[in-house]
Amino acid sequence: MEAKQGPHVLILGGGFAGLWATRGLASAPVRITLVDRTNHHLFQPLLYQVATAGLSAPDIAAPLRHILRHQRNVSVRMDEVRSIDPQQRRVHCAEGVLEYDFLLVALGATHSYFGNDGWAPHAPGLKTLDDALRVRRRILSAFEAAERESDPLRRAALLNFVVIGAGPTGVELAGTLAEIARHTLPREFRHADPGTAGIHLVEAGAKVLAAMPDSLSASARRQLEALGVSVHLGNAVTAIDASGVHLGDRHIPSHTVLWAAGVAATPVARSLGVPLDRAGRVVVESDLSVPGHAGIFVAGDLVSIKDAAGRPVPGVAPAAKQMGAHVARAIRARLASRTPQPFRYRDFGNLATIGRMAAVVDLGRLRFSGILAWWFWLIAHIFFLIGFRNRLSVLLNWAWSYWTYQRGARIITGSEPPAEP
Amino acid sequence: MEAKQGPHVLILGGGFAGLWATRGLASAPVRITLVDRTNHHLFQPLLYQVATAGLSAPDIAAPLRHILRHQRNVSVRMDEVRSIDPQQRRVHCAEGVLEYDFLLVALGATHSYFGNDGWAPHAPGLKTLDDALRVRRRILSAFEAAERESDPLRRAALLNFVVIGAGPTGVELAGTLAEIARHTLPREFRHADPGTAGIHLVEAGAKVLAAMPDSLSASARRQLEALGVSVHLGNAVTAIDASGVHLGDRHIPSHTVLWAAGVAATPVARSLGVPLDRAGRVVVESDLSVPGHAGIFVAGDLVSIKDAAGRPVPGVAPAAKQMGAHVARAIRARLASRTPQPFRYRDFGNLATIGRMAAVVDLGRLRFSGILAWWFWLIAHIFFLIGFRNRLSVLLNWAWSYWTYQRGARIITGSEPPAEP
Repeated sequence: MEAKQGPHVLILGGGFAGLWATRGLASAPVRITLVDRTNHHLFQPLLYQVATAGLSAPDIAAPLRHILRHQRNVSVRMDEVRSIDPQQRRVHCAEGVLEYDFLLVALGATHSYFGNDGWAPHAPGLKTLDDALRVRRRILSAFEAAERESDPLRRAALLNFVVIGAGPTGVELAGTLAEIARHTLPREFRHADPGTAGIHLVEAGAKVLAAMPDSLSASARRQLEALGVSVHLGNAVTAIDASGVHLGDRHIPSHTVLWAAGVAATPVARSLGVPLDRAGRVVVESDLSVPGHAGIFVAGDLVSIKDAAGRPVPGVAPAAKQMGAHVARAIRARLASRTPQPFRYRDFGNLATIGRMAAVVDLGRLRFSGILAWWFWLIAHIFFLIGFRNRLSVLLNWAWSYWTYQRGARIITGSEPPAEP
Repeated sequence: MEAKQGPHVLILGGGFAGLWATRGLASAPVRITLVDRTNHHLFQPLLYQVATAGLSAPDIAAPLRHILRHQRNVSVRMDEVRSIDPQQRRVHCAEGVLEYDFLLVALGATHSYFGNDGWAPHAPGLKTLDDALRVRRRILSAFEAAERESDPLRRAALLNFVVIGAGPTGVELAGTLAEIARHTLPREFRHADPGTAGIHLVEAGAKVLAAMPDSLSASARRQLEALGVSVHLGNAVTAIDASGVHLGDRHIPSHTVLWAAGVAATPVARSLGVPLDRAGRVVVESDLSVPGHAGIFVAGDLVSIKDAAGRPVPGVAPAAKQMGAHVARAIRARLASRTPQPFRYRDFGNLATIGRMAAVVDLGRLRFSGILAWWFWLIAHIFFLIGFRNRLSVLLNWAWSYWTYQRGARIITGSEPPAEP
């Protein structure tokens, strides 16, 4: 059924980097195996919408084997990568061992609690669909618990939401939470008033959206405050427990703390046995290959590399796609006995959404914010979604939310393990 | 914020019976508390579509407090009912104790393994959204595992699906599984061929859809077989374990067994301390009140009652809605010091779907099957779905599936506890 000939390209991870590399090798004389621990490609830029009940999980994900069904030189394997053995040219997975001629490691990043792993159960992060469904359950369950609660102090704590980290994900979560509390829910509760909910965005640094120019950061902060978010800048978290968040002497009582602060490379990278940067990312050669292993490439959030101007290439979807496409070209070059070109990051700009009709856009010379930026963000994101059905469904959901302030996926599924003390 | 006056009507369960009773009391001078363990009303007739990846969870569920947001005499409480104390007029929930003047118990049914609870981990049933997501995960994961498997016997077992029980749910599951294996997946796999999957429908009785007239049962069986389902009638299951299903001496090796055979009333009914039938349902008075407790009513799948012709009223959505509406009228009668009328079940007919363009319809004098029955079934179900957004989304998904044979929700979420031996 598949191409039985040609070198075997093993691609670990079906995110933007892995998928774009796979597609870039569609007409190459190779056999490709794409391994992912899930069965789907996830459109991560809209993950916060699943977490905040605006979209359903299938709206932003598509089965990898469905996306790649017409590419006959690819075999998709759902499996979890455990370690890489570059000497033996083998990858150890939960369900077997795979060999390769070329390897692309595109396993991405996970959230990092900066060594405070005890915070994890109290402050879930947002990287996978399961993470998003867990965050959704926590948010919706907090409003339900507040409605049952008769003690005013406990009710107030249940209606306090704290988002840690004011990068793009933290800003999206805080803005959307404010929208839900102020606009979506109020008429539906009889005892607790969601309109009194406190939405706190806590950031150790001096500004929100640190990657943005100062004027847009300031605009984003104003837009957040206009939505009803309390922005706490220059406040490092010192502890998170069942009672809430500690910022030095200050304490914000809360039952719903969301983690959007730290990102670390997947620990599998260590098994490569090559130098990593402080965040655990692989320091690659200019063509994205691993030093000393010309047949192994790294792409996406796992890569530590600088652009032409000497700035680190950011961990964003466009960079991952460009790296994936580059690795496909590099492998084709090797097959043709040519030397691969160095990777060059093209920065097309930087968008961040904040909430309903609030966003900031930085296209280099052109910078704008507010409603226009929101429409720009919306159109760009729907355009880049994979699959016609998904686009239609997301568009429908968005139109619905826009006109009614309602969110179509306010369904609690799954259950929590018992809370830890 | 709510009506503080009037007797307190406590409604346990936000399914069809509980929701229709709540709506029937919209203009009554009462305070209503509606308790459900989930935050949503579930359109159970389409639950098999979530289990088979045709629809997403939010497509067939809507938050109870959203549905009831304009009914000011209702307060919705997400909580789990533990037991009822009719003497003290109290209901004990996981998160508190509730008192009542009138009580409606509409907690429905759960699946029953006829005393073989050890079968449960190997053969999940289908009653809640979490059940449906678990079944979806099992089905999709089996195809993924088959694709990884190199041993032909083990691969065959992974591609064997067994549905136990040929009632409406079992028939829907088997028919849709056949559709997925034969039409949706084949081009997407490189090693395992989903087209060779065995779909087995096992039934202890002599026909499929036992509630249907013989001619329609026979037609349903022919339609199932045309879709590629192996129908095993008169075969009682003697054991289910990790290796598959045992039917006396016969063994069907399978990793994916789905339970659609037994239904039992929720065990909470026992705490009422009144006579129950063999399935644990409450034997009620003609007005649906509980013998000896004129202020307590039961409705929906928890009720054991016969219709005018002496046949048991079936556990279907229209019966639950009629009972819920009846209880609302009975409570209004009591408030006006009138005697409630007896409940009369109006049987409007019986529909069952089998798969793509395959269904049977029994409207009493009018009986038909095949494509026309499927369109009739589809239109009826979309019409009865709650919420305009849901209808639009389901219609869109159905149109998509219809033209492309694709299913829009083929996303594995959550994880299984380790398989038991």
